[in-house]
Amino acid sequence: MAAHKVYIVGAGPGDIGLFTLKGLSCVKNADTIIYDFHINAQILTYAKEDAELIYAGKRGGHHELTQDEINQALISRALDGRNVCRLKGGDPFVFGRGGEEAEVLVEHGIEFEVVPGISSAVAAAAYAGIPLTHRNYSSSFAVITGNEDATKADSSLNWASLAAGFDTLVFLMGVKNVQSITSHLIEHGK
Amino acid sequence: MAAHKVYIVGAGPGDIGLFTLKGLSCVKNADTIIYDFHINAQILTYAKEDAELIYAGKRGGHHELTQDEINQALISRALDGRNVCRLKGGDPFVFGRGGEEAEVLVEHGIEFEVVPGISSAVAAAAYAGIPLTHRNYSSSFAVITGNEDATKADSSLNWASLAAGFDTLVFLMGVKNVQSITSHLIEHGK
Repeated sequence: MAAHKVYIVGAGPGDIGLFTLKGLSCVKNADTIIYDFHINAQILTYAKEDAELIYAGKRGGHHELTQDEINQALISRALDGRNVCRLKGGDPFVFGRGGEEAEVLVEHGIEFEVVPGISSAVAAAAYAGIPLTHRNYSSSFAVITGNEDATKADSSLNWASLAAGFDTLVFLMGVKNVQSITSHLIEHGK
Repeated sequence: MAAHKVYIVGAGPGDIGLFTLKGLSCVKNADTIIYDFHINAQILTYAKEDAELIYAGKRGGHHELTQDEINQALISRALDGRNVCRLKGGDPFVFGRGGEEAEVLVEHGIEFEVVPGISSAVAAAAYAGIPLTHRNYSSSFAVITGNEDATKADSSLNWASLAAGFDTLVFLMGVKNVQSITSHLIEHGK
């Protein structure tokens, strides 16, 4: 049996109302759903009754899968001819590691399609009533991880450029580092 | 009659599958829909049969409304107690001028709620298979207007910071200026 296309689907920032019509249709049609911690569990109630639901976790605990195990699950189910929906919080390509999973699928000759989701970078600002851009005040915005992978070769952000180059800055997952982030920015004149 | 809350709704990048469940519900419940050019017309087929549909345009032509006329329409319909849905392409707060319309509503004491939409900044990258971030290669991205309002006081982008500060750059509405954008970036070492 030919491998089915894998849908890498963004579940949005939490509110099920911000899930997309196409995302919902992928969930309804899936034989296997591999989902992360950061999704609204209500979405899973739309799955087929006999759908296989695999919790990939991403929080401390006993049952979370490693990235390798997630990749293996994606590949094996797709090669079995199952409709696979990989459900991730927010948008799969905005700090969602969707790129890495897509690479693995490509390596195994499995077709994939990304269904974008509303990123919390945009939704949190909207729900707070803060426009990321404004005709009179802001013609650019930047989204930066607030929790950078320390193993990345060039891990230091260019604070001078961040402070000078952009009108609006959004730091994701930055609560832990809010003190050092704001210090860096103020130091560089923001 | 008390003014109803106005919903400022992002219609997403075009594909109706990328419209949100909540956005669709706003459209279905609206007495008046004020919509821009950059939305999928199929969305309007979900409107109530007797809903008032106002085309705000945003393209050259005779019938487009000025921003003032759009604001006036929003205010008058809301004060009439109608359910108003302001439908904009992409996300209302990402180069959508949603912020300006929200300000006008606040000035008139009219409640509003923003329903985020998928921005083309994210969707175009996803449909092209390009992750905006990647654990190994990119821990930040920036979204910049490619078509800046020349009347803005500080209209020149900080190209040195743009080139040095960010891993992934997305220019929106930049086709017209692609030559000068790329020249600036290459000049600054990107």
